[in-house]
Amino acid sequence: MPKNNGNSDLAWPSVNRLSEYLLILEQFEKDGIGTISSSELAEVYGNTASQVRQDLFRLEETGRVGSGYRVDVLTHMIRKALGLERKSRVVIVGCGKLGSAIAEHVPFEEYGMVLAGIFDIAPDIVGRKVRGITVQDVSRDTSALKDLSPDLAALCVPPPAGQETADLLVEAGVKGILNYTRKRLRVPRGVSVQDRQMICAFIQLSFAATK
Amino acid sequence: MPKNNGNSDLAWPSVNRLSEYLLILEQFEKDGIGTISSSELAEVYGNTASQVRQDLFRLEETGRVGSGYRVDVLTHMIRKALGLERKSRVVIVGCGKLGSAIAEHVPFEEYGMVLAGIFDIAPDIVGRKVRGITVQDVSRDTSALKDLSPDLAALCVPPPAGQETADLLVEAGVKGILNYTRKRLRVPRGVSVQDRQMICAFIQLSFAATK
Repeated sequence: MPKNNGNSDLAWPSVNRLSEYLLILEQFEKDGIGTISSSELAEVYGNTASQVRQDLFRLEETGRVGSGYRVDVLTHMIRKALGLERKSRVVIVGCGKLGSAIAEHVPFEEYGMVLAGIFDIAPDIVGRKVRGITVQDVSRDTSALKDLSPDLAALCVPPPAGQETADLLVEAGVKGILNYTRKRLRVPRGVSVQDRQMICAFIQLSFAATK
Repeated sequence: MPKNNGNSDLAWPSVNRLSEYLLILEQFEKDGIGTISSSELAEVYGNTASQVRQDLFRLEETGRVGSGYRVDVLTHMIRKALGLERKSRVVIVGCGKLGSAIAEHVPFEEYGMVLAGIFDIAPDIVGRKVRGITVQDVSRDTSALKDLSPDLAALCVPPPAGQETADLLVEAGVKGILNYTRKRLRVPRGVSVQDRQMICAFIQLSFAATK
């Protein structure tokens, strides 16, 4: 696994917010906006200017100019703090609709990641090309998975296959799993699992929208 | 929009955690486990027992027995606090791979939601049936969208169409949007947007896995 190289003292909520700020700032950059104030960023993100300032305070440099920050400096420093230069190798396991949506639409290369491989077990999916990558069979032979030296994985298999597939991933050296199945996973210490059951997002939205 | 009926005093981080606890507890329930301690729940979720106890303290009732909680009482009370009895009407706009993955795999009915409609503009997608629902054309006539009285929407269109589609949704009465496009949306006050750009999840995972 490539080294972090980021600011590993960052607390988890800060990491979450900084990654969101990064996407916002990059959109500002595309729109040709050169400087931004903490309250402008807070308004788009949906928090407070003082929270934004607190988060940005952890960066090495922020490019302060007058009452604002230089967007190009901020994006660069957030990328550095998040360690986005590390070239993590990502595999997707389960190439149904969700797995192939991830393969086709997530811009890994722009954020220091490489999509190294895609796996499935269904005969009608194995052998297909998705984003230029041939889907490999993970059931028959796990050496193909190991050979890729994967660092991170998106787990998009049906829930009953979740744990077994996670075990294969861990055995192949994966250190982080995005878990899209509706199944909690048991993994050894040192492996990070982030649960992304989609229904959770809808439950939270439903609460927020009726508050 | 149906009323919240939940505990609207809940702070946002609590709502996030409670919705995750709910999914964990339901899995415990399926596995036949009747009681659970705060440290067991914390271990699966990945936080601390004292944080779990703090979150559960906000519930009307927790079914405490000895040093644990009754799983059935907890799931019931979390559902109540989150207002999951409100039958929100959900629409999916953009029925490519991601939109159809959401339509097919997200168990809306189990969490007080109804998938009311699916929309797209591509001629080869409009008219298809996904999860028993015929995909309708949103470009031609927006009255079909309004007629569904949607409360919540998943926005899965390509980024350039994001804002325009969000405007249509707001006009049709939508109060909450899950934004899967890589485009920040401007919406009027009273409408909640939750950004779910998938790359963010990978950035966060990548940081966590190398920490």
